[in-house]
Amino acid sequence: MKLKLDYNNMMADFVGAQGISQADIDGLGNRIVAAHKALADKRGQMAWRDLPHNQDDIVEEILEYVAEVLPRIDTLVVLGIGGSALGPIALQAALHSPLYNFGNRPRLFVLDNIDPTTIKSVFAMLSLETTLFSVVSKSGATSETMAQFMIVKEMLETRLGKERAAKHIVCTTDTENGNLIKIAKVEGYKTFYVPNGVGGRFSQLCPVGLLPAAFCGLDIRALLAGAAEMDRAIEGNPHNMAYMFAILHYLTLKNGKNITVMMPYSDNLKYTADWFAQLWGESLGKRYDNNGNEVFVGQTPVRALGATDQHSQVQLYMQGPFDKVVVFLAVDEFACDIDIPKTFEDMPSIGFLGGNTLATLLNTQQKTTAYALQKAGRPNMSITLAKIDEHIMGQLFYMLEVATAFAGELLNIDAFDQPGVEEGKDATYALFNRPGYEAKKAELEAAPPKNPKYFL
Amino acid sequence: MKLKLDYNNMMADFVGAQGISQADIDGLGNRIVAAHKALADKRGQMAWRDLPHNQDDIVEEILEYVAEVLPRIDTLVVLGIGGSALGPIALQAALHSPLYNFGNRPRLFVLDNIDPTTIKSVFAMLSLETTLFSVVSKSGATSETMAQFMIVKEMLETRLGKERAAKHIVCTTDTENGNLIKIAKVEGYKTFYVPNGVGGRFSQLCPVGLLPAAFCGLDIRALLAGAAEMDRAIEGNPHNMAYMFAILHYLTLKNGKNITVMMPYSDNLKYTADWFAQLWGESLGKRYDNNGNEVFVGQTPVRALGATDQHSQVQLYMQGPFDKVVVFLAVDEFACDIDIPKTFEDMPSIGFLGGNTLATLLNTQQKTTAYALQKAGRPNMSITLAKIDEHIMGQLFYMLEVATAFAGELLNIDAFDQPGVEEGKDATYALFNRPGYEAKKAELEAAPPKNPKYFL
Repeated sequence: MKLKLDYNNMMADFVGAQGISQADIDGLGNRIVAAHKALADKRGQMAWRDLPHNQDDIVEEILEYVAEVLPRIDTLVVLGIGGSALGPIALQAALHSPLYNFGNRPRLFVLDNIDPTTIKSVFAMLSLETTLFSVVSKSGATSETMAQFMIVKEMLETRLGKERAAKHIVCTTDTENGNLIKIAKVEGYKTFYVPNGVGGRFSQLCPVGLLPAAFCGLDIRALLAGAAEMDRAIEGNPHNMAYMFAILHYLTLKNGKNITVMMPYSDNLKYTADWFAQLWGESLGKRYDNNGNEVFVGQTPVRALGATDQHSQVQLYMQGPFDKVVVFLAVDEFACDIDIPKTFEDMPSIGFLGGNTLATLLNTQQKTTAYALQKAGRPNMSITLAKIDEHIMGQLFYMLEVATAFAGELLNIDAFDQPGVEEGKDATYALFNRPGYEAKKAELEAAPPKNPKYFL
Repeated sequence: MKLKLDYNNMMADFVGAQGISQADIDGLGNRIVAAHKALADKRGQMAWRDLPHNQDDIVEEILEYVAEVLPRIDTLVVLGIGGSALGPIALQAALHSPLYNFGNRPRLFVLDNIDPTTIKSVFAMLSLETTLFSVVSKSGATSETMAQFMIVKEMLETRLGKERAAKHIVCTTDTENGNLIKIAKVEGYKTFYVPNGVGGRFSQLCPVGLLPAAFCGLDIRALLAGAAEMDRAIEGNPHNMAYMFAILHYLTLKNGKNITVMMPYSDNLKYTADWFAQLWGESLGKRYDNNGNEVFVGQTPVRALGATDQHSQVQLYMQGPFDKVVVFLAVDEFACDIDIPKTFEDMPSIGFLGGNTLATLLNTQQKTTAYALQKAGRPNMSITLAKIDEHIMGQLFYMLEVATAFAGELLNIDAFDQPGVEEGKDATYALFNRPGYEAKKAELEAAPPKNPKYFL
């Protein structure tokens, strides 16, 4: 395994009263066994667990499609939001420069919002003749994505005609249900599928994540192989990184830490923290437990970045309430490094920097921030990647997915639904006069008027 | 004022038990009066309060410098971190497209981290002959920024020679203290100043924020005029937006809400939430109050984005613990809009979108998410910008700065220091063998070894 978890600073031996004791962990003994068994029993219903193993044919199909289309496009635009965007963005950011689009082809734009100013500025960059739009929505009913799709479809058909336009759209959606698969069949769009039992936030290792990665030249076989290796390690030993990540978080949550900060010390991993924020937040933030009791449980993920946020958030992490755990992501070996010259040796407050390198400085800061937090009694752990490549990212994604599912078992909640988002959607449908939402519209209209006193 | 605060959904009348009552606010009466008086009394020590009013000469100097340099550069690279980067990024993102660097000159890169892979990829984009590096560090001792500066200085001098290199560096630093001002004088760099009494996170309206904005063609006079208008509104009436923002947060904090989410429904305002996260987190996260009591106070800022995070974080906000307040930023009038065509009128789950626009959809989603949270008993407030321009951004920045200072008064803490970051810095100095840190190095070496059991 090229991934390492160091949780010394989570433990009371090192961090003091706010930490966890081995007895706390041992005390969960039966719960851990039960959660392990539950995950094993439910594995058949968790299709995402098998994605690392059963996609040889899909990978083949993706690579063939990419090879066929790539010569005629210079830009891939993904229309997708939430789980359809966060994984692709995280992987692209991990393995390519933030300036990738300046010099590389195909450029990748992920439209994960509906702000017209952004979308207009992306459209202004495109030559439609050489652009492929990848529409990603499992349900085929995601308002943001489908609105984008409707705009793009009309734009393409106006410019290129209906027949040619169809060659510029690829869909990734449910195998049977929803509008998008129906539309794709009628229009003759190339289609990939989100397998049954794979929810949005667990879809990174199916075509949702694989297709854009393959277009941008990433090794998707290595990605899956890394995930498969992590799966075998988890299955082979209940004392594994994924379970421990969940156990430590579960115990800190019980101990009043309602916040978990993911703080990579690597620009490339910044969006991995974004992807994790959905996974952890949406999976574990639940009103009811599996027995129907109201629990209002969850832990709020915070996305940070080292060393940058040392100059923004670390003051709070060091001295604020004891309400959080910090998860560092560190990288042993950066893809490149830069020497700091020995320029100002006569100036003590900066001269010491000379003769070192930026990677050394960054990695030292990760370690000293972890040390400072530990000394201040603040629980933290470090996940270290030997380097950043597809194989290790596969391990990391899969580890965090299983950790989330395992935490769901410990919390006795359903980690795979998101009933809380319906209320807002229904209200939007009502205000847009969607048939069937007349009662909701009446409810909105009957809401008590706002109080003018409460405006400033 | 082109900025509006709607706090109906913070109030118990609307949001129920988790909300605030008018009696809660009225109960603070004396505290509010005292905090107002304290801010007025301390105004002389808070130089940042006067930035909107006293910089006519500085603005003139900045504009002259920009006019002189602009013809010979196509790229501005800011070397700065924390308060030296977050404000410039927030303002640039607010007023320009995320794709600004593709078609506009001068391009703007802000190096707010020391990841060598990112820095190398930015360097690869530059022609040094047409690049200006802006080094920003009040203390002149910020390790990250000074390391970058040392690298850049050597690179420029190697390529252009010492004399020409000096024309490609501009410094913004303390008027008297620190290495950077010394170096700038020796080398003959053009220099701007961070006035005394203006800390990093309150420096957006001094040359730290003004210089890069002016280079990118933004109207810095309008920015300051907006801030000045907000200052007059605040000074003129204690029942103002800034104080109310602080009061509402103070009361929710006392009520167990240790998290505040800033969730703009506008891509352009995404980085304003980043800027605010430093302001709120670093100012209010404190171990001691002004009387020396250990309080470990603070509220953790979370950066979200609508509609995107409806598909990531809103499930947690709706159904998780009652531990947060959500602050929406909304925009009445977007710079442009896009029509959604009436394409699939026969498909009820998406057909209703046709005939509307993306801006309408986005704004409707902000309102329905606020409504859904209110209905679920989750306190939230909305700050609405009539549109996004320099004047309104000036109002918004200044309002949030004063709100932060006012919250510091209510919490009886020093909102302007950051003692908690020293521990990590000192440990870095020790590991880098900086003279004077031998004791710290000995402390690190004497720390108990990690337990091999706590690795996975």
